[in-house]
Amino acid sequence: MKTHILCIDCPDQKGIVHQITGILYRHGLNIISNGEHVDHAAGRFFMRTEFMGEQSQLPGLTELKAVLPAEHNLRLVEKRKKNIVIMVSREPHCLGDLLIRHAFDALQANVLAVVGNHDRLQPLVEKFGIPYHFVTHEGKERAQHEAEIGAAVAHYAPEYVVLAKYMRVLSADFVHHYKHRMINIHHSFLPAFIGANPYRQAYERGVKIVGATAHYVTTDLDEGPIIAQSVIPVNQTHDAKEMAQAGADVEKNVLSQALKLVLDDRVFVHGNRTVIFD
Amino acid sequence: MKTHILCIDCPDQKGIVHQITGILYRHGLNIISNGEHVDHAAGRFFMRTEFMGEQSQLPGLTELKAVLPAEHNLRLVEKRKKNIVIMVSREPHCLGDLLIRHAFDALQANVLAVVGNHDRLQPLVEKFGIPYHFVTHEGKERAQHEAEIGAAVAHYAPEYVVLAKYMRVLSADFVHHYKHRMINIHHSFLPAFIGANPYRQAYERGVKIVGATAHYVTTDLDEGPIIAQSVIPVNQTHDAKEMAQAGADVEKNVLSQALKLVLDDRVFVHGNRTVIFD
Amino acid sequence: MKTHILCIDCPDQKGIVHQITGILYRHGLNIISNGEHVDHAAGRFFMRTEFMGEQSQLPGLTELKAVLPAEHNLRLVEKRKKNIVIMVSREPHCLGDLLIRHAFDALQANVLAVVGNHDRLQPLVEKFGIPYHFVTHEGKERAQHEAEIGAAVAHYAPEYVVLAKYMRVLSADFVHHYKHRMINIHHSFLPAFIGANPYRQAYERGVKIVGATAHYVTTDLDEGPIIAQSVIPVNQTHDAKEMAQAGADVEKNVLSQALKLVLDDRVFVHGNRTVIFD
Amino acid sequence: MKTHILCIDCPDQKGIVHQITGILYRHGLNIISNGEHVDHAAGRFFMRTEFMGEQSQLPGLTELKAVLPAEHNLRLVEKRKKNIVIMVSREPHCLGDLLIRHAFDALQANVLAVVGNHDRLQPLVEKFGIPYHFVTHEGKERAQHEAEIGAAVAHYAPEYVVLAKYMRVLSADFVHHYKHRMINIHHSFLPAFIGANPYRQAYERGVKIVGATAHYVTTDLDEGPIIAQSVIPVNQTHDAKEMAQAGADVEKNVLSQALKLVLDDRVFVHGNRTVIFD
Repeated sequence: MKTHILCIDCPDQKGIVHQITGILYRHGLNIISNGEHVDHAAGRFFMRTEFMGEQSQLPGLTELKAVLPAEHNLRLVEKRKKNIVIMVSREPHCLGDLLIRHAFDALQANVLAVVGNHDRLQPLVEKFGIPYHFVTHEGKERAQHEAEIGAAVAHYAPEYVVLAKYMRVLSADFVHHYKHRMINIHHSFLPAFIGANPYRQAYERGVKIVGATAHYVTTDLDEGPIIAQSVIPVNQTHDAKEMAQAGADVEKNVLSQALKLVLDDRVFVHGNRTVIFD
Repeated sequence: MKTHILCIDCPDQKGIVHQITGILYRHGLNIISNGEHVDHAAGRFFMRTEFMGEQSQLPGLTELKAVLPAEHNLRLVEKRKKNIVIMVSREPHCLGDLLIRHAFDALQANVLAVVGNHDRLQPLVEKFGIPYHFVTHEGKERAQHEAEIGAAVAHYAPEYVVLAKYMRVLSADFVHHYKHRMINIHHSFLPAFIGANPYRQAYERGVKIVGATAHYVTTDLDEGPIIAQSVIPVNQTHDAKEMAQAGADVEKNVLSQALKLVLDDRVFVHGNRTVIFD
Repeated sequence: MKTHILCIDCPDQKGIVHQITGILYRHGLNIISNGEHVDHAAGRFFMRTEFMGEQSQLPGLTELKAVLPAEHNLRLVEKRKKNIVIMVSREPHCLGDLLIRHAFDALQANVLAVVGNHDRLQPLVEKFGIPYHFVTHEGKERAQHEAEIGAAVAHYAPEYVVLAKYMRVLSADFVHHYKHRMINIHHSFLPAFIGANPYRQAYERGVKIVGATAHYVTTDLDEGPIIAQSVIPVNQTHDAKEMAQAGADVEKNVLSQALKLVLDDRVFVHGNRTVIFD
Repeated sequence: MKTHILCIDCPDQKGIVHQITGILYRHGLNIISNGEHVDHAAGRFFMRTEFMGEQSQLPGLTELKAVLPAEHNLRLVEKRKKNIVIMVSREPHCLGDLLIRHAFDALQANVLAVVGNHDRLQPLVEKFGIPYHFVTHEGKERAQHEAEIGAAVAHYAPEYVVLAKYMRVLSADFVHHYKHRMINIHHSFLPAFIGANPYRQAYERGVKIVGATAHYVTTDLDEGPIIAQSVIPVNQTHDAKEMAQAGADVEKNVLSQALKLVLDDRVFVHGNRTVIFD
């Protein structure tokens, strides 16, 4: 008996839960947990069902789709580790956290490779027996560099790409290729600080909390659908460097939390927002 | 069209969601939100469904119960303000917060009366046009005092009783009468401090956080099913009195948060634990 | 014996702590707590000293100033309740929290009056025996309205003005008159939302936390030196109204926390940032 | 110019700050930050001063002690990385976090070695080029095992010992040898759960938050002076294993936070409590 997850989102319509659960019932499948949400403003229905059964018992997609409105999204997946590639630049905190979790089976993912535009983190990655692809951006046109990075990632055909402090802007093509499958982490402040060296700005503004946001990557830089957010208190004894260190601690926690939700098929995207069953 | 809430908990069994949602569908009712949870260790199923429809469309309880295992709990209620009575002693912070919310329609409850064993809070309550029953415990046997308090509360036939820092132990009879309908708030520490003056103990132990727990009242003092918990940071500059003030701020927040969940029929009790759909 | 507080900020210079504490020592005063902070980037020194002694023992300001660099700020105040006026519009949550604290001696302030541009909160304020000045903005030019509001506030000569959800923009003149003595609370989001109905925007963006910032009022709207900040988690089950309610809960907590710091002379302002000894 | 830290605690007495800062001033040293705290109940004074100067400028201990009451503690240390040994059993999360920080110079310590009573974490430690001493407890008397563990640690003469989920009880002798120099992390719950499998108990009790406490090790198991504490929210969807995972995330954060404070000489111990300048 294996665990499967069924994710549906579609225009809201009476009777969907009844019909979908009816199909599962007739196939003799045992529901473990079930969450539904209706976004009334958008008129959209979201449903995540986790159930147990033999592979042979699974309903066909045609059978499921038959009871849904036309404009639906439907995924039926076995609960298993997902294949991911991690992209990095120079900062170790998010990558390090993921590698430790991965090494001790606390990440629901197979880390197939790490791809970076610097070589600073290469020794760390290789300690863990994971391939590291160093693709420098120096002396290359942006398009050329991205093509090389993209090829390195695509070679592994990952289900998800995790930007663990990868600091280069990605093109619309790259982003679209991994639509709703690429996750980024970035610092967040109240108020927001635009431009270079945001921790310096945050220090100069005397903020009392710094935070982090994990989100799907879209072509709006740092503005995709939010998956997880958190903050940490700071004060005047934190200089800009210490604020950044506090921010780094939040970033790694938030990225891990977001990734856990994504890897467990708990996150739906609709427009620029997420619906999460946790 | 009114909103109704259906709450079911019963032994886990295949097909319940399908059958219950089928009944709602055949009655033409529109599900707004639906949450299910299975406690595998206990083999127990929990379901909360919020739906819209005319009163005349509601399914009969017999119809609903027919599809459930024998040992079920079922509630079908209209979404509306609940009638509550608040019990207090001398501390104003929790009561004050509830009165302000009530006065500005931010509490899903009608506060019918406040009953207290001190008169300190009487003027505050009466400012808001709410009856205050002062039932002193002085010069009375415990049983006598509780009988009087109980009569004062029972007079209003409240659906829920909120102990907003009522500091007297209640008898098993009193507790049973309001089983799963009486909510208490108390301070919480890491580690726990037993005995008198816990904030003094917390201060002397140099704790770095103080907290609060809101729970249903059972005959195990301060040990009933937990509804909500939170904490606040403290340090050496907080003396015992200031720790208590910090604790009071958390207590009022946690009590309001717990009450919101209870009044919206989001809390299920099973054994000594809660299942909450929020 | 009374408690006094000495607050100094000045260009950093060797020996200041030694010289100031020497003066206190020679006057036989007993230091209770002492905090110093040096902002190295700004080359600025901050010191807050709390000490006990008779009024007759206090050093003269001339004596204290003699050991300081020219460009200093110095305040020597007795620890006592400050006189404040609260300004409001229509929302009760922050005002209600302050009134309850005030009524039970849990606010280090005398609330002399409440001034508002709506009459919704007048009955609440008057319940507590505090004068309410209703100064409608309807049918008035902005300058005319502000002059009337300003006169109502000035009549009480408050030491601090608290904007407890006062929703009108104040002129530069008004702001300057209460420089570093007027505190505001406003909602805060990650990312920031500009324009009307920010909670609607936050909902549509699917944010996972909403927050609040208390700050001194400057002529940069909602951009003055930050005193306190906090956040609360939200999710897709919160519609815009419920997000605003969650935000209201944070706002009242953060405003009270900030006010406590200000009233206890724990907050220094330097440029657009604060240094806080807590 | 190097940074030095002076830590003093002694019976409270007028003039200490003046006299100590006078010595620093006469030696031409530049105070960077200064914190004092008086514990009135205990009549105890605490002072931490960070200052810059040449090694040759440092005051002698005799000179400093001359102005202090007899029963003082005094430490004058250069700000530099401390030498530490980490002890572990089988759980990787705390160790992993420390190793990553150490590898990228984000821990103010030299990790000289890791000593463990299991070999599960040996490969991880050796990846980072750090010696691992595997001292099994199997087939050994408790005293014999502890003697071997103790020898392995003592070989490195560490300034601090960090118990990163070392799961064996240590003898009074061992504890005394590293008095105020050995730090432990353990899970914390509201309410507290005594006995085996606390996460199972927490799950069965339906707690809404789980936490962690970092503390100095004393002979009262898990009851030494608290350095740092934090919590994380959980709910019914977390089974006992997932609660433990959430707890692990908090544990590693709290241990790192506590260690940072200790390594920066910010923590004073008095009786069973700490005074922390952060």
